[in-house]
Amino acid sequence: MSPPTRSRLSPEERRSQLLDLGVRLLADRSLDELSIDLLAEEAGISRGLLYHYFGNKHAFHEAVVRRAADDLIAQTAPPAHGEPLERLLASVTAYVDYVLANFQGYVSLIKGSASGNEALRAIYEEVRGVLADRIFQEDPEGQLVADTPRNRLVVRGWSAMTEELVIAWGTEPAGVSRDQLLAIVATSLPALVAATAG
Amino acid sequence: MSPPTRSRLSPEERRSQLLDLGVRLLADRSLDELSIDLLAEEAGISRGLLYHYFGNKHAFHEAVVRRAADDLIAQTAPPAHGEPLERLLASVTAYVDYVLANFQGYVSLIKGSASGNEALRAIYEEVRGVLADRIFQEDPEGQLVADTPRNRLVVRGWSAMTEELVIAWGTEPAGVSRDQLLAIVATSLPALVAATAG
Repeated sequence: MSPPTRSRLSPEERRSQLLDLGVRLLADRSLDELSIDLLAEEAGISRGLLYHYFGNKHAFHEAVVRRAADDLIAQTAPPAHGEPLERLLASVTAYVDYVLANFQGYVSLIKGSASGNEALRAIYEEVRGVLADRIFQEDPEGQLVADTPRNRLVVRGWSAMTEELVIAWGTEPAGVSRDQLLAIVATSLPALVAATAG
Repeated sequence: MSPPTRSRLSPEERRSQLLDLGVRLLADRSLDELSIDLLAEEAGISRGLLYHYFGNKHAFHEAVVRRAADDLIAQTAPPAHGEPLERLLASVTAYVDYVLANFQGYVSLIKGSASGNEALRAIYEEVRGVLADRIFQEDPEGQLVADTPRNRLVVRGWSAMTEELVIAWGTEPAGVSRDQLLAIVATSLPALVAATAG
């Protein structure tokens, strides 16, 4: 990024570009390791300018996590058409790929969320809520999952299972292939709904 | 507990009795709320004597959580005989009942474990490992779940799902009965194993 290019960006564009860089840096490091110093070095700008954009380190972390959450929600949107199970598989595949590509940051978000950082927890809970609600919104006729109190609970459990499966597999695949992981995650939701309907 | 009774207990028995009291106090309060002061008041003994038994507050919390973990593992042991699914249902029912009866403490253990308290995390991980291993140990012929890398991963995901389901339901049952919750948890494991075997 040479100075002439940089000077043509608006402050809003420049801030957005820095957030994207922050998200990329979270691929292989935790939030604790993502410092203002590191971002300044990677972006080739001063720490002072970064404080100008983000205020302080907590606000910077919150803005980066918010951007990452928006990315995750956008990238996991199911295709507009297709069979319900195919659309679910596409969405789940995107989720698994996103978490694996942003592994250290994702794990540190879960940890930060659980440790009592209320801003991170709110973003984390919001993402889980959006992903769970989407199961029902994208399937209004209930072809895959009817919208009942029991299925709302089942989807919540399935979401927790999916997260655990991806993190366990990302840490140690233990002989399970990525395709097997994806099949486990996608086929388990209709299987759970069918098994628990009785 | 009158002084004559108390004086007949050995230090080891007395310590054990205090741990049981600590576990009972965790039923409706978090670890942070379980102070040495509170235990001293409830036990009717001095803070100084409690420090004598437990050293410091962290060691006290760790000892109480260790006792709670031992209780959980003992109480969720499946019956020695019966059909595999019946034995699983009995074990899962005991797990659900234990978590619901010790709700605030259990939730605070998860939180403490995730927040970077290594002693709590080690106990938490150990319990999860024992409960997951038990699925395979209690079913050596694989009638319910064959011991394969894929099923090891599935059981791990199912454990995370079970925990999420119990905590979500304990927080807000949302029209789902306890029997429905138990049925969801118990029937989901064989359903997941069957669905993901292909």
